[in-house]
Amino acid sequence: MYTVKVYVTLKPSVLDPQGQAVKDSLHYLDYTGVEDVRMGKYMELQLRASDRGEASKNVEAMCERLLANPVIEQYRYEITEATS
Amino acid sequence: MYTVKVYVTLKPSVLDPQGQAVKDSLHYLDYTGVEDVRMGKYMELQLRASDRGEASKNVEAMCERLLANPVIEQYRYEITEATS
Repeated sequence: MYTVKVYVTLKPSVLDPQGQAVKDSLHYLDYTGVEDVRMGKYMELQLRASDRGEASKNVEAMCERLLANPVIEQYRYEITEATS
Repeated sequence: MYTVKVYVTLKPSVLDPQGQAVKDSLHYLDYTGVEDVRMGKYMELQLRASDRGEASKNVEAMCERLLANPVIEQYRYEITEATS
């Protein structure tokens, strides 16, 4: 069993209105030191796979097909072996 | 300037219907090795602060007040010094 942490973020060239809104709200709350906010998604998967290579191959495919939108988003992931 | 990575996740005791939906979709796409999915948020902030202690104090307060809902969510963050 593997624990996979997936981070999906907008590509740097893509506008992030949600991040802009969060930044504005933080400024409104007087956190004026915040210069930029970019929003992303974080997912934690428990994955059954025979080895790390298969896990990695599957995660890559899942990101391309469902978890991220490769047109506007980029992703990275970390795979760690779970104890069970 | 500091780069702050904030990870907001649901507390383990809180049901995650979005994660369940993603898991079901992955099973439908034949990724049946996926045993569990938990969804979270990932934010990247650029923060002006005089030192790491002030940055950390501010991020903590921002998480408690806006970025996370402390009733159902937990958060963690990493602070790295940006080069500029």
